[in-house]
This record gives sequence, structure tokens and C-alpha cells, in this order.
Amino acid sequence: MKTVDADSCVPRAELLGRAFKLLGKRWNAVVLGHLSHGPTGFRELSRAIGISPSTLSDRLTELSDVGLIERTVHEGPPLGVYYELTDRGRALMPALEQITLWADEHLPAD
Amino acid sequence: MKTVDADSCVPRAELLGRAFKLLGKRWNAVVLGHLSHGPTGFRELSRAIGISPSTLSDRLTELSDVGLIERTVHEGPPLGVYYELTDRGRALMPALEQITLWADEHLPAD
Repeated sequence: MKTVDADSCVPRAELLGRAFKLLGKRWNAVVLGHLSHGPTGFRELSRAIGISPSTLSDRLTELSDVGLIERTVHEGPPLGVYYELTDRGRALMPALEQITLWADEHLPAD
Repeated sequence: MKTVDADSCVPRAELLGRAFKLLGKRWNAVVLGHLSHGPTGFRELSRAIGISPSTLSDRLTELSDVGLIERTVHEGPPLGVYYELTDRGRALMPALEQITLWADEHLPAD
């Protein structure tokens, strides 16, 4: 994996804008972070995150459209529908983890 | 610095929510990324990022309030007012850099 040195970091504005346009939308990062636990059903995801089914559905569609997660149907019985990270989505997890480490250390809770 | 392994990453939802509530607000991450170049004047920052003075002023106040940047006055002549990252803000740069690397590789431009 790539590592970066704090003293030589110059994140590029265009790429930051592109990434945060997606990740900055409320719930998107939290949904992705939750799916890092493994494939998860819709109802479990909705309950765990505490968002309405319609909002979750909207976010799952958006994240699927950009290829960060995928919906898979496990033939039963019982039949199950799961959402899980793609390789592209999984590749984001180290960066999200770094952000949580930073928030834990530097960002006070409200 | 801490490094993280993609296979063992489980970003915590509460911390992700806290971080993205701040960073997800439009322009905040881009402003921080720009300040990683070094202390920057208001007008230069506004021009470089391409946002209105009133929006930039609003973001700089918010980022100052949480201690990620600071405003310093350089006695002249000529007098100059600069914005720069604090240690807390600088500590975020490796994570932002990782996100840009990820976006460059995985997130298509619109």
C-alpha cells in the first residue's frame, strides 16, 4: 500500500473536490464504512446506521452507480439480498480509516 | 505515522460521521488541501479555489473555530494577513492525500 508523509502532502484540489462531492454527501462515507464489516442486508444496514429506508435506498443506488458497492442476491432458502464493497470501494477503506484515526485524536465531539 | 491495512479496516461510524460532517461541507477539504502549500492570503485563496469571498470567509471561520487553520497577521510593510494550517490541520493531510490517490485511480471525472 502507499504511504504518505505529512510534510510533503499537497492534495490536489480537483481530485479532492471530486472525492468529497461523493463522500461528503451525508451518509455515504458511513454506509461505506459500515459495509467494510462485510456483506450486509438492507434492513440491517438501515437499522445499524439509523437512517430511513428511502434515504438508504437513494445512497445505495448512488454508491452502486459509481461502482463502490454491489448488490448481490443469495439464492435461498432463505433468499437474501446483500450489499457489499467492490474492489474499488474496498480500496477506499485505508483512507477512511486514517480519517477516523485523525478525527478520534483531533476532532472534538460536539 | 500510522499505516493501515485494507483487509483489516473497519472505520467507525461515529467518527466517520463526525469527520465528514466537517469535511463533507462543500469547499472545506479543498481549502485545507490548498493551505497545505503553505500560508496563503485571502485574495489568493479565493482566486485559486474559485469561490466567492463571502463563502470563503464563512469556511475560514468554521475551520478556524475547530482549530484546523489559523489567521496570522504579518506586520509590514506591506501588512499581510495569511491563513495557514495548524498542527491539527496538518495532521489531516496524509488522509486527504490518500483520498486523492484513491480518487485519481478509482473515481472517474464527471
